[in-house]
Amino acid sequence: MFPKNTWYVACTPDEINDKPLGRTICNDRIVFFRGAGNRVAALEDFCPHRGAPLSLGYLEDGKLVCGYHGLAMGCDGQVASMPAQRVQAFPCIRSYPVEERHGFIWVWPGEAAMADPALIPHLAWAHDPQWAYGGGLYHIACDYRLMIDNLMDLTHETYVHSSSIGQKEIDEAPVTTRLEGDRVITSRFMEGVMPPPFWRSALEGNGLAGDVPVDRWQICRFSPPSHILIDVGVAHAGKGGHDAPAEHKVSSTVVDFITPETETSIWYFWGMARSFRPEDTALTELIREGQGKIFAEDLEMLEQQQRNLLAWPERKLLKLNIDAGGVQSRRIIDRLLEAERTSDNQLIVREC
Amino acid sequence: MFPKNTWYVACTPDEINDKPLGRTICNDRIVFFRGAGNRVAALEDFCPHRGAPLSLGYLEDGKLVCGYHGLAMGCDGQVASMPAQRVQAFPCIRSYPVEERHGFIWVWPGEAAMADPALIPHLAWAHDPQWAYGGGLYHIACDYRLMIDNLMDLTHETYVHSSSIGQKEIDEAPVTTRLEGDRVITSRFMEGVMPPPFWRSALEGNGLAGDVPVDRWQICRFSPPSHILIDVGVAHAGKGGHDAPAEHKVSSTVVDFITPETETSIWYFWGMARSFRPEDTALTELIREGQGKIFAEDLEMLEQQQRNLLAWPERKLLKLNIDAGGVQSRRIIDRLLEAERTSDNQLIVREC
Amino acid sequence: MFPKNTWYVACTPDEINDKPLGRTICNDRIVFFRGAGNRVAALEDFCPHRGAPLSLGYLEDGKLVCGYHGLAMGCDGQVASMPAQRVQAFPCIRSYPVEERHGFIWVWPGEAAMADPALIPHLAWAHDPQWAYGGGLYHIACDYRLMIDNLMDLTHETYVHSSSIGQKEIDEAPVTTRLEGDRVITSRFMEGVMPPPFWRSALEGNGLAGDVPVDRWQICRFSPPSHILIDVGVAHAGKGGHDAPAEHKVSSTVVDFITPETETSIWYFWGMARSFRPEDTALTELIREGQGKIFAEDLEMLEQQQRNLLAWPERKLLKLNIDAGGVQSRRIIDRLLEAERTSDNQLIVREC
Repeated sequence: MFPKNTWYVACTPDEINDKPLGRTICNDRIVFFRGAGNRVAALEDFCPHRGAPLSLGYLEDGKLVCGYHGLAMGCDGQVASMPAQRVQAFPCIRSYPVEERHGFIWVWPGEAAMADPALIPHLAWAHDPQWAYGGGLYHIACDYRLMIDNLMDLTHETYVHSSSIGQKEIDEAPVTTRLEGDRVITSRFMEGVMPPPFWRSALEGNGLAGDVPVDRWQICRFSPPSHILIDVGVAHAGKGGHDAPAEHKVSSTVVDFITPETETSIWYFWGMARSFRPEDTALTELIREGQGKIFAEDLEMLEQQQRNLLAWPERKLLKLNIDAGGVQSRRIIDRLLEAERTSDNQLIVREC
Repeated sequence: MFPKNTWYVACTPDEINDKPLGRTICNDRIVFFRGAGNRVAALEDFCPHRGAPLSLGYLEDGKLVCGYHGLAMGCDGQVASMPAQRVQAFPCIRSYPVEERHGFIWVWPGEAAMADPALIPHLAWAHDPQWAYGGGLYHIACDYRLMIDNLMDLTHETYVHSSSIGQKEIDEAPVTTRLEGDRVITSRFMEGVMPPPFWRSALEGNGLAGDVPVDRWQICRFSPPSHILIDVGVAHAGKGGHDAPAEHKVSSTVVDFITPETETSIWYFWGMARSFRPEDTALTELIREGQGKIFAEDLEMLEQQQRNLLAWPERKLLKLNIDAGGVQSRRIIDRLLEAERTSDNQLIVREC
Repeated sequence: MFPKNTWYVACTPDEINDKPLGRTICNDRIVFFRGAGNRVAALEDFCPHRGAPLSLGYLEDGKLVCGYHGLAMGCDGQVASMPAQRVQAFPCIRSYPVEERHGFIWVWPGEAAMADPALIPHLAWAHDPQWAYGGGLYHIACDYRLMIDNLMDLTHETYVHSSSIGQKEIDEAPVTTRLEGDRVITSRFMEGVMPPPFWRSALEGNGLAGDVPVDRWQICRFSPPSHILIDVGVAHAGKGGHDAPAEHKVSSTVVDFITPETETSIWYFWGMARSFRPEDTALTELIREGQGKIFAEDLEMLEQQQRNLLAWPERKLLKLNIDAGGVQSRRIIDRLLEAERTSDNQLIVREC
């Protein structure tokens, strides 16, 4: 159960720079590739000749050539040519609206006519030289909404990520959740706490003392269908916290794009955008590696949680105040699903 | 189809000494751990907050803390606390009767009110310094009754274990099967045979000649639901066989606790208790290793037999005289199953 | 959906020389072994005693002895003996007609009374010292008909095998397909083309210039249920092509026996018979290795094509002129299936 009339991240540009990529998104088997002028295209991963996956083919003259018998497919799903064959009567295959923006390839798995590129979330940092970004991709066997819950309640950092970003004070700090239209914002502020290892390193990497009390913040922003950006950071205590001048703090944006593969599996695009030392590519890689290890800690928990939910399908879960972010996000998703069911399709993505 | 109102071996103490253990028993996902005072506890492996497996958590102050968001679960399935939450209204989860006895952790997957610890089979050798025990655990993809058949008909030793404990004379010696209440006893005695490699080593390891004729015995004792203890041994021929004085023989008890995981998989706890040189821990380990290799030979046979039975579900099998032990054991199991079905639940385990 | 009243290749002689072999053919679990006088036998892989697979047993005195409890099974499916048991009343198991011919073991999975060994395709080269043969076996997760399509349309060589036997001219050369009774013959001739790497090597290995234009031919011969022999070769251009004198050409027969395991998996026996330098066993091995690598290139394509067809079960595929060989072959198969359905069983294999 996932909204389809919306933009999802399908892949990163480097995944399709050299060859086509086959990837299942919202249960659809899709091939992504670069056609004429390097423009990205997305089609059913199914050659109309004999059903071979087009993703096993290759690019030639802006066409995707099937690797089985050489049918050349245009970016629009119409057969362009095939050796020794007249192709006018060949059936089309479905093409998907797809856009390359802000360092990602976005796909619209629903009704093509509704696919407005203006609905793709704007990621300002992707175009700002004062910012740097690094990230990765995990495949996780869980419902995409379990990952939304995970990210909209960072209480779990205390337990799942106890050796890096977790600390006891997260539990103890109250969390507030509010709605802004289709967006959900969950915030937590901790004052005068000692920074956990990840943030100590970040402070020191930025030339600041790391063993002194800090004010810490986490502001999780959900926008449908399943995009979550999290403002995180620490400032030396008493300097203004989130609003402290740059020389007293270190902060970044955790980037999470969650794309359903099936009802019980996801493509999880994770990363971090930061506005300090953006030119330092070694630091970018260091952060990426560290974040990759931290985020890998969620995998077993989410996959086993999913297995438990399948084993006890009738059981109701608790919705505590710390779960408000996930609960509100799911309500928005349910509204979108209901709208799609009733064909009263509305545009479902605003800016991120 | 397995009796549930009975005690099964769930795990060994060392499996839960350091951390909780998640294990499926009779189709139930259960977490085993040590609570206050090191006392063992067993609960549904399901956190009532968000369904995470409690077995991914940790022990603190006698409580099992969920590794996702810190809910602390009491040994009785009642939530003890959760950071920044009032937990009185939290739902309970199911707890299972569980006991630590005779070197094993026992669980009662059925109706808790019926769980009488006095029904746990008494293993005298576990408390006798004149005895030593070593064992292991295998996971096998077969119906637990196939393993009962296997152990109640040792004819298979001739074929499956031909290089260690098998010998042609097993086939040729008549087998007798008798009932004692809910217990089945199958016996086989061979006189004046040469000892196979395992027993030759055991004789020599015990300071006796190993290359002379022996009287050999196998007495398999089934008690429900699926516990099998087998008295095995050899004595120099003509010295009285099973009843020969200790200086002429070497003997031991093969220990088999079979715990259903699902309809087609088991946890198989195997081991050997012996009354010679009990202080020799190197010998214990040597025997354990040897037995482990021998018992591993059954795995492929049992798993492929299971696959065959699933492929030919309608086919009736032969019940020969050598199968009497398994046939009688299954009858007792069927009676227990019928009793559970009709709610006329009786206590189903006597002493082992 | 596969014809059952027909001969399939079950295995090669070396697979059963030392021990029995369990193999599923047309959904039947069968054990193949050599009985008295080394004669091959095929039985249900199911011991009537306890359902163990007989393929885990061993041969003794021309009988197959079950590795679980020693039941000795005769080649006809009748129990021969069992230690300490009278076996007259034991149930039989099914035996399958099976023959060793032309370097292969053939099995008839359908009605035994119809199994005429004269219907096994005659492979003259298997008995001719002027010919040599080398081959191998692949297990592929696809419908057997997808492999027939693959082999009856060699257009795919241009794409799947582009670095060895593929070349652009295959695409461009017209293909002709004709029926001869139950056989389908698809031919393609290319004149004055440069030989691709595989054929260049073959020419040079045979003492002929490899860097000159050649006439190339491919003649695919399907005979039901799923045997395909392909005459392939090249001759120096203008010397008569397929009919050129031996000193101007190099040619061979690609041998493909496709045996369904299940509806979506096959045993694929591939090989090459050649009439040049037959005594050169190093060359046989070199060709076998090269062919093995080339044929392995089809595996991923066929398995992913199968997955696509299962994902889009309702979708119709194109039948182009290049597909005529597969289309005609499937028509013959459909006719056989229809005949088996209506019990109007005809003999379905003629000579190969």
